Order: sequence, then C-alpha cells, then structure tokens
Amino acid sequence: MAEGVLIAIGGHEDKDGERTILKEVAQRMRGDVLVLATVASHEPEGYFEAYERAFSDLGVKELRELYVQERPEAADAEKLKVFEGAAGVFFTGGDQLRISSQIGDTPVEAAVRKLLAEGGVVAGTSAGASMMSDTMLVRGANQESYRIGDLHMAPGLGLVRDMIIDQHFAERGRIGRLLGAVAHNPRVLGVGIDEDTAVIIERGLMRVIGSGAVYCVDGASLSHSNIAEGKTEQALSMHDVALHVLSAGDELCLQTRRPRAAS
Amino acid sequence: MAEGVLIAIGGHEDKDGERTILKEVAQRMRGDVLVLATVASHEPEGYFEAYERAFSDLGVKELRELYVQERPEAADAEKLKVFEGAAGVFFTGGDQLRISSQIGDTPVEAAVRKLLAEGGVVAGTSAGASMMSDTMLVRGANQESYRIGDLHMAPGLGLVRDMIIDQHFAERGRIGRLLGAVAHNPRVLGVGIDEDTAVIIERGLMRVIGSGAVYCVDGASLSHSNIAEGKTEQALSMHDVALHVLSAGDELCLQTRRPRAAS
Repeated sequence: MAEGVLIAIGGHEDKDGERTILKEVAQRMRGDVLVLATVASHEPEGYFEAYERAFSDLGVKELRELYVQERPEAADAEKLKVFEGAAGVFFTGGDQLRISSQIGDTPVEAAVRKLLAEGGVVAGTSAGASMMSDTMLVRGANQESYRIGDLHMAPGLGLVRDMIIDQHFAERGRIGRLLGAVAHNPRVLGVGIDEDTAVIIERGLMRVIGSGAVYCVDGASLSHSNIAEGKTEQALSMHDVALHVLSAGDELCLQTRRPRAAS
Repeated sequence: MAEGVLIAIGGHEDKDGERTILKEVAQRMRGDVLVLATVASHEPEGYFEAYERAFSDLGVKELRELYVQERPEAADAEKLKVFEGAAGVFFTGGDQLRISSQIGDTPVEAAVRKLLAEGGVVAGTSAGASMMSDTMLVRGANQESYRIGDLHMAPGLGLVRDMIIDQHFAERGRIGRLLGAVAHNPRVLGVGIDEDTAVIIERGLMRVIGSGAVYCVDGASLSHSNIAEGKTEQALSMHDVALHVLSAGDELCLQTRRPRAAS
C-alpha cells in the first residue's frame, strides 16, 4: 500500500479559476518538482503548456514532461532522470491502455511506485485516474444500463487495491457500466468520479474535493445479480447495492467502506 | 389504491418489432377499447396514427384519441364519451405538466381513476409515466450530479403513492436527479425506468418488462444527506442509499421494498 498520496481526478479539472484540485496536488508535494506524464495521449502536444500555465503560481517550481512514445523508452536512463528529486507525478488524460501498455512493468512504473512509497504524490486525471486500480475499466457504454458482456477491463497499475475507478462520471452517464464492473466481483469498490472532482487517497482513507460528486458502489451485500447467468446483451439485474454519494469534504474509510460527512 | 393495472414506461418503447410492452398493455385489457390520451403533447398530430399502427395486430379492436387543448374541455361531456366501454387508457409522451395542469382534478381525471378502480389498465410512456406519482419530477439536469436546489417537482395525478418515477433513465443520465428527488423525502421510492422498459404495478407488486433496466433508489436507511443544509449549487451528499437494478422479470414488493429475481 502507498505511503504517499494518490489523487484520482474525474477529468476536466478547473485549470484557470479556483483550481481547487491542482492546488491540492501542489500543496501535498514535499518538494518543488512535478513530473507531468503525458503517456496516455497519442498526441501529447499542448498538455505540458496548459499545465505549466495552470500550475505556474501554485508553488510548483519545476514541471518536467515525461512522454513515452514506444515502450522501450520506458527503460531509457535518460528518460528516468525526470524523477530525480521529483516530489510528485501527474498523469494527464487520454487512453488508460496507453499508460498500462507503455509503462506497465517498466523502470518508469518502478519509479512511480518508488515515489509513492517514499511519500510522494501520484495524481492522475481521467485515464490517469482509471489506470490507478488493479483492474481498470477500459471501455463500456455511456448513457446505457449495463448489458451482459459489454465491458472491457484490463490490468491497471495497481496503485490502489480492491477498487475500480471511473471518471467523467455523471457527465457521461456511467453509473450503468460501474455497476456492471462491480457485479463482476463485489470485492472491488466502484468509485465514479465527476469532472472537476477528485478523491485523495492516503492511509486507507478517501476524501473528496472539487465541485462535483463521487459515487461509491459497494456490492458487498449483493443478494442477486445475473452477471454470470444472463445472456449476452441482457440488461443487468443487481439487487441490494449500497450506494454513497460523496461531495467535497466527505470521506470514506476504504477498509470498512463507511462514509463520513464533511464537518 | 388501484385495483387495476398501472404500466409506467420509460419512453421509446418498441413500436414495430417485438413490441413486448405494447403487447402487455393489450393483453392486460379486459376489453377491446383503448383510449389514447395525447394530452401531454403540444402538437399531438401523428401520435394517434403511430400507435394505431403499433397496436393494430395486438388485439386492441378500437383506439380512441383523447386530446385536451384547453382545460375546460376536460369537463366536456362529448370528450368524456371516449371512456364509455374503455378497458384502458394510454398516455403518450410530451410534458407531464400539460397532463397535470390540463386534466388534474377534472372529470377526465375522474374517469381515469374510475377506470383504474374498476380493474382497467392505465399505461403511460415518458411524461405519461412521470405523471402517475403523487409528487412528480418535472425538470432537473441530465448527465449531472444533483446540485442543491436544481430540481422542479409538482403534484402529479397520484395514481401510485410513495413513489417518484423518472424515465429515459440511463439514456439521459438521470441517476443524479432521481437521487436528489429521493433525498428531499426518503418516504418516496425513486423509480428510474430506461427506454423500451416498463414497470407493471398491481396489488402492491412492481414487475419489470422490456429490454432495459429499472433503478429503484431506496433512501429509507439514509445516514446522511446535505439536502437541507447544503448551499444552492453545492453537489449532493447522500450516504447509505440502497439501490436495486431490476431487469425483465424482476419484481419489487412496494410495501417491503424487497426485490425478487426473475425465475
């Protein structure tokens, strides 16, 4: 488990107003250098400049870009230098499969783990949030109820366990697919994060910041689902889901899965 | 409480394929005449023809249109004749406020109630489903988490009690607003119905038919919500919601709110 701080952001975090979430990322860093990992993007141009502007007056002294075009580069000693003295790494959005396929089980991934283990901040937005879990959600219909068979999952970076993270949550109508994901194995807690909203995970506690909500889908007490018996394309049936809608300041204990209201 | 059968449809029910839902409407009628109430629409043209085609070979011998342009017409003896010998009434979609404002507390509404009390079928799709509850959901954001203050409700026809019905549910990303509605008073069960999906309510039991899912949001065990304390526009916080996702064949007992899986 991480000693440091994980910050999973639901995408479209505010970059030119209050910047509540980016401010939190900057404040949590015990140092001046933040690595901006644009690995998730096929075309990383522009990301660095946008975040450089956004972070400019928030206390991040140096922002260093990390891009991995082809997997072998993730073992490149020259590339790995960006982590020297870094206090945090921020994964931008794009495709979570690019993150896992390009840096999974490489020295870059090891550097990210090391940073986290040593008390650093690992933040990620959109695809950068999805990739944090052991098993990550890759693809599934938006604005639809879950249909048996209609979901693609893959091994994620496993920075947090027993959790599946989804993003752009309310905005893209993703409750159906998150319920479907949890039905596969209720061991995992489903965490759906709205845009401009984030969860800060540290020491087994998850706290919400930002302007939207975070949906925690707990299937531990499920009395029934048709995920294994249902025919392909059949609509999901799933009884006795516990759902918590959390907003800014609310917390959830990951071990007990009990929520606590903002004080 | 109704002696007859209520059929609440989430909109866009199949009209030229299997027609599972319309077939059920036809089969439940103990007679040949169905009144098609197009009251919800500002421009009812075309509805009658579409449903006449859809119902043509399903056993409905006579389809009679009921339209109320202005409220006084809802007391018109001539209009009321459509109910003579009718076994069912089907409310088409549009604006639920048109239904409640045009026929609420009028002889037309009385005729609908009488039909139901005498064992008839009252079906409604989209707006025609929403209007069935005591308090109905009129307007609220789609594809957004519920924000304090952002919901318009109004008195419905009250054909079913202790329930709020929402429609086009997964397709329009409406879990946020339904949760918000339930947070106002957990006495009501939130029922979100997907397109081409319906609930059949009779003798205190609700059964699902059609191709999608029905979401039952039960707030009876809520441990916290910020609905009364939160500032306007603040995201909803709501802990310990019980959620059931029901699909074809699944049932829910309205008194105990316990689901039962399709056999």
